[in-house]
Amino acid sequence: MPRRIVLNRLIEGPPAPDDFRIEAFEPPPLSDGQFRARAIWASVDPGTRSRLSGGGSYAGALGLGQVIDGFTVSQVVESRNPRFPEGALVAMGGGWSEEAVFPGRGYASLIPDRDLPLSYWIGVLGVPGMTAWFGLHRVARLQPGERVLITSAAGPVGATAGQLARAHGCAAVGLAGAEAKRRWLIAEAGFDAALDYRAADLDAQLDAALPEGVDVLFDNVGNAMIDRLIGRLRPGGRIVVSGQIADYNLPLSARPGLVNTAPFITHRLRMEGLVVFDDLRAFPAAQTAVADLIRAGSLAVREERFEGLEALVPAFCGLFSSDSFGRRVVRLGPDPE
Amino acid sequence: MPRRIVLNRLIEGPPAPDDFRIEAFEPPPLSDGQFRARAIWASVDPGTRSRLSGGGSYAGALGLGQVIDGFTVSQVVESRNPRFPEGALVAMGGGWSEEAVFPGRGYASLIPDRDLPLSYWIGVLGVPGMTAWFGLHRVARLQPGERVLITSAAGPVGATAGQLARAHGCAAVGLAGAEAKRRWLIAEAGFDAALDYRAADLDAQLDAALPEGVDVLFDNVGNAMIDRLIGRLRPGGRIVVSGQIADYNLPLSARPGLVNTAPFITHRLRMEGLVVFDDLRAFPAAQTAVADLIRAGSLAVREERFEGLEALVPAFCGLFSSDSFGRRVVRLGPDPE
Repeated sequence: MPRRIVLNRLIEGPPAPDDFRIEAFEPPPLSDGQFRARAIWASVDPGTRSRLSGGGSYAGALGLGQVIDGFTVSQVVESRNPRFPEGALVAMGGGWSEEAVFPGRGYASLIPDRDLPLSYWIGVLGVPGMTAWFGLHRVARLQPGERVLITSAAGPVGATAGQLARAHGCAAVGLAGAEAKRRWLIAEAGFDAALDYRAADLDAQLDAALPEGVDVLFDNVGNAMIDRLIGRLRPGGRIVVSGQIADYNLPLSARPGLVNTAPFITHRLRMEGLVVFDDLRAFPAAQTAVADLIRAGSLAVREERFEGLEALVPAFCGLFSSDSFGRRVVRLGPDPE
Repeated sequence: MPRRIVLNRLIEGPPAPDDFRIEAFEPPPLSDGQFRARAIWASVDPGTRSRLSGGGSYAGALGLGQVIDGFTVSQVVESRNPRFPEGALVAMGGGWSEEAVFPGRGYASLIPDRDLPLSYWIGVLGVPGMTAWFGLHRVARLQPGERVLITSAAGPVGATAGQLARAHGCAAVGLAGAEAKRRWLIAEAGFDAALDYRAADLDAQLDAALPEGVDVLFDNVGNAMIDRLIGRLRPGGRIVVSGQIADYNLPLSARPGLVNTAPFITHRLRMEGLVVFDDLRAFPAAQTAVADLIRAGSLAVREERFEGLEALVPAFCGLFSSDSFGRRVVRLGPDPE
């Protein structure tokens, strides 16, 4: 029988291994429109954290015993849906599970070609990459020549956002922690600058890197970081609320606030969040553009690869320390022939 | 000699009479493009507060001895600008001064007709009314059938915003303090509901008044109010940052924060501020539409009128207590014949 990982208890604070449980299960029989697929790659996503404490989230809180969210690259093994025939490769919300049944609606998308690593379809060509794309292009309406400042810039969303900004004729400056990440952002990802967000002289470094200020703040971190950087936004600046990794583990009462909101008026700022599934119909065009950049050698992709269902929980828990560096993907089954 | 009011000392906390000083002055001779005008009505505006403590603002901080900002309805008494001939009535940024010289550029706009009270041109047809109009229509892109929640709803911006929302086919619910204000909002201004923001059961009252949530939060108050109400926004909701009267008197370190920002992602919220001078070229069309609503009896206007230059300072200081109710205008000279 295939195995899956379910929520063992509601989580307070940072997630820990005991919050999860592995169980074997019998996939249900298929109805019309459904298909069953085996997982090849699965992802761990920081946003999942917000569903694991009970209470509300855009996707609804998970209940005890429910399978943990995650995206998978899967291969269809049984189908009652003509769009997804047996053998097809799909990117889908298969969860942390060795097999999944697509329920007939929701996120499932055929993988059109195989020249790039399959795992990219749940990374730079999947939700994190598309979040960068639609955050910059739909939400921020990025214009060539603008200056983009990206937090958690070495993460899968941030690294893609900076490179897409550069490809759009913009300056990209990233904040990250470890020196290895900052070196990579400049040497491999082509950022104009990569600064240590913990540096004592961060303000002076930002003054030097972005002397004319910032048009788009692409934030993956949360309130405190936005509050610290908002004063750098130029008139008409936009804040893309892409993720809040520093806040997910905190109860609302313990979260820092965004205090310096006066520039919303004085500088006509706009702050807007996104859930990238709103853009699903536009994914193929954006994926083609991103894949072309990768093939041209203009977009560096960094992954951290893990092996086996058991690796999902530690890979997920590690997202909330600073040691993750690149899109974390876990192999759950062999590539198709 | 005409008189004016200047900044006597930089202000900390709520403004007080000693922060200002009256002085006589000699208007300078005119250059080409300039005109000199005598003030008929002057306004006091809460946003002025942000310029009186030194430091930055979109309009720049005032220095000691400078004339305090304010809009005036004025009559041209001497002109070297053919667009503003002697005798013309203008709405302009004349400041707290019995006479002002228009410097050749900046805000000055001919008053096209005289059937409405002249003071309306620095009120419902001036900056506060236009802030309501462009906040709803340009920033929030209000759609018929949406639900609008307005804070400080009995103020000149809020009262206009609610009535414009109603005129656009929307539901309008206002928050205000005094019972007289709430009665007026319903009986005269046609709000669907007007709730006491200090009520112990405000949440239950909001649940009842807006059971399906809020599409547009039009905020004139500041961070704490937004934080309290943000959870009511529907997917795709917009927050118009129109004013921050509760925060202007606080140093940044003492301001409350906007903590509950998770809905920016989960509910795809957008928060955006405005400075209505960006919309100056579109004022005439909006003013015509608002004036037509007033003439049709569909838009109630409430003013508090004061007499004489000496009344400006107490009228301004009173904006930051809860006792002001309606647009505060001060008569500085007689109506033209």
